[in-house]
Amino acid sequence: MTDRADLCRELQDTWHRDIPLAAAMAIGVVNYDGHTLAVRAPLTPNRNLHGTAFAGSLFSLCVLTGWGVMWLGLKERGASGLIVVADSHIRYRKAVSGDLVCSCTTEPAAFAASVEQLVASGRTRLALVCTIDADDKPAVIFEGTYVVHAKHEH
Amino acid sequence: MTDRADLCRELQDTWHRDIPLAAAMAIGVVNYDGHTLAVRAPLTPNRNLHGTAFAGSLFSLCVLTGWGVMWLGLKERGASGLIVVADSHIRYRKAVSGDLVCSCTTEPAAFAASVEQLVASGRTRLALVCTIDADDKPAVIFEGTYVVHAKHEH
Repeated sequence: MTDRADLCRELQDTWHRDIPLAAAMAIGVVNYDGHTLAVRAPLTPNRNLHGTAFAGSLFSLCVLTGWGVMWLGLKERGASGLIVVADSHIRYRKAVSGDLVCSCTTEPAAFAASVEQLVASGRTRLALVCTIDADDKPAVIFEGTYVVHAKHEH
Repeated sequence: MTDRADLCRELQDTWHRDIPLAAAMAIGVVNYDGHTLAVRAPLTPNRNLHGTAFAGSLFSLCVLTGWGVMWLGLKERGASGLIVVADSHIRYRKAVSGDLVCSCTTEPAAFAASVEQLVASGRTRLALVCTIDADDKPAVIFEGTYVVHAKHEH
């Protein structure tokens, strides 16, 4: 799984280098098994004035985790593209008072269809669900639609 | 309008002191007229890897602007409470390639009813819409539901 570890390092480096807010959040990849990506952020830089996790940090962690699982899945299949989020809905069910850990799983058949469409038409979209738990219960549920445009290298 | 200017300064200080991500985003209050709050964040600390505004920064700016207009409105009416966002939906219509400026307006009758309910029952909720324009067109549309709990000072 060296390739996967390398890809996860590249993903984390990209976030920290190119997205200042991701660096400020101190996010880090926890695990990736080919379908599920888990990303963590410590509470301290992500707290709100109540001492729990800031809604904006929770959203940012979700949107990056969904972006990351797409980026990794495309890379593993030798594909690539510009990934952007188009639309999202987030529900805050309970406060998160410890470190923030988000996970997002791609469904293999839907992901494969999405990659095929990207290769065939230069564009695809995929809906993903990311969750953050607190005390083993879902505290945050994020549903986002990502759009991928094939890259045209000049 | 000294009171309003003081309140806006207090709001901005609260954000920078108690929410590290708001400080990292370098957000600042632009204007508040009693109904509409405008908040700005420079692009540089809020960029993504495409050089435009990061989706998480855009969301965070919206969620804080909505929170801020509620906080200011409550303060101006001598009320207060713990304000949290419960649910939100954000649509990204186009990329934002300059500074991020968000505005949120409360509807006077709905806001007054909400304050009355807070005073009467100790709890209220209010739906708000925040927008960020790019090239004079709506680029980001955020709809959030905020819940306010009356504070019990000990």
